[in-house]
Amino acid sequence: MAIITAIGDPTDPRLDDYRDLTTADRRPDRPGGRGLVIAEGVVVVRRLIESPYPVRSLLGVPRRIEELTADLAHLDVPAYAADADTMATTVGFHLNRGVLAVADRAAPVDAHELARTARVLAVCEGVNDHENLGSLFRNAAALGVDGILLGPRCADPLYRRSVRVSMGHVLRVPFAPLPGPWPESLDLLREAGMRVAALTPAPDALPISAAGLAGERVALLLGAEGPGLTPEALAAADVRVRIPMATGVDSLNVATAAAVAFHAVGASVG
Amino acid sequence: MAIITAIGDPTDPRLDDYRDLTTADRRPDRPGGRGLVIAEGVVVVRRLIESPYPVRSLLGVPRRIEELTADLAHLDVPAYAADADTMATTVGFHLNRGVLAVADRAAPVDAHELARTARVLAVCEGVNDHENLGSLFRNAAALGVDGILLGPRCADPLYRRSVRVSMGHVLRVPFAPLPGPWPESLDLLREAGMRVAALTPAPDALPISAAGLAGERVALLLGAEGPGLTPEALAAADVRVRIPMATGVDSLNVATAAAVAFHAVGASVG
Repeated sequence: MAIITAIGDPTDPRLDDYRDLTTADRRPDRPGGRGLVIAEGVVVVRRLIESPYPVRSLLGVPRRIEELTADLAHLDVPAYAADADTMATTVGFHLNRGVLAVADRAAPVDAHELARTARVLAVCEGVNDHENLGSLFRNAAALGVDGILLGPRCADPLYRRSVRVSMGHVLRVPFAPLPGPWPESLDLLREAGMRVAALTPAPDALPISAAGLAGERVALLLGAEGPGLTPEALAAADVRVRIPMATGVDSLNVATAAAVAFHAVGASVG
Repeated sequence: MAIITAIGDPTDPRLDDYRDLTTADRRPDRPGGRGLVIAEGVVVVRRLIESPYPVRSLLGVPRRIEELTADLAHLDVPAYAADADTMATTVGFHLNRGVLAVADRAAPVDAHELARTARVLAVCEGVNDHENLGSLFRNAAALGVDGILLGPRCADPLYRRSVRVSMGHVLRVPFAPLPGPWPESLDLLREAGMRVAALTPAPDALPISAAGLAGERVALLLGAEGPGLTPEALAAADVRVRIPMATGVDSLNVATAAAVAFHAVGASVG
């Protein structure tokens, strides 16, 4: 059971994991595989506790810590209770959500295993915006996608902003870097019996609803908003599919387009 | 043709329309039908110029005004050129996008006419978040929805943040308040030959792809993220439809759910 300790001094070294979060979040040099996993708010902290990531501690105002009593019953980590001012001074800004938890990273899941067992996967290329990637995970979770593989130039799903925007679903949807040189690495999916479908606004692509993907084992290849998939990635796909769009309109946000595609291939119904 | 005038004094009364935008944006008392329409950035300013809203003036750094030369050729309003500091002092914050335009509001479109001519409409109830409403308009534009009707407790689509998040599509997608008492006012749609389909996460609703709506004339009833549609609105619909979801996941963002639904009813393909 978590031991609740009151802390009144923002310089207390037990709060070092929580210090100056905004600066930490803006550090462009933070590599994808390192850094703590930070959850904000009761809902996301709960998801972190249920996740495979080893929780190190919690920090929250007493009322929020109390809301998590049941979740903390079987968790053997310190929970630091502090007032809102102490928390604000420690993290560097006022926290609306009143509670944080930090965890270490865990070993990524195995991409081969994901490809072998999934019905629907998303494969991202160049989705380098933390909020878009977080939203994409949220939509994947809601629509029953079994996992996400990260190709080149993707943001870090475990970055604080990704975690927050995903509403904690980056902690639940299995993900892994796709190993090997891109885009040849997509062969891993084909060898596991999946069809690789590239989502593109190109007018000569098949409308996604007409591509015979519903109910099939599909890996949906998704590129960044704006540039979209590279020609190499498009060429490496088995089929190119599009969401029919009105003329003269910029494309959908990548996470929104992904949601439409996840629904169209029936990710949540098989 | 727009007359370009350099202004170096942020207190110049010709800039009054642009003064202290953040405060204006936060004013909770601003009624839905009033206030100027403000466009930010070249893309959105261009959409404002192409829209039915009567442009009053532009304010931008010289480089951005220059980008709009072709758009300004047939527009008989002043364009004020200022440096970034003068603009920042006037509007109250640093503007990344470098150009603004303001317009007066125009008379709303006629809800009866929309209902008579549209293939797909969205009808919002309680979508009171400006960003969600803006995203919903963007998705409606991309996916070929013919118009949006606003039921009770919706945000103002012409609020600055809605305009920005919609990428200017609130200026292109026709919208109108739905006249009359809610939800009886939905009869207007039925009388115009549309089916009224309520989107809900309720497990006993029909999967949207199985509801026979593709290609039909449909009014999609959308509620706020969180509470969703009221029981009255649900009861007033002809059919209740759902997006199949994974269990244990919060619902999708309302604009994302709307995009999935717009695609499922084939808004952009007929």
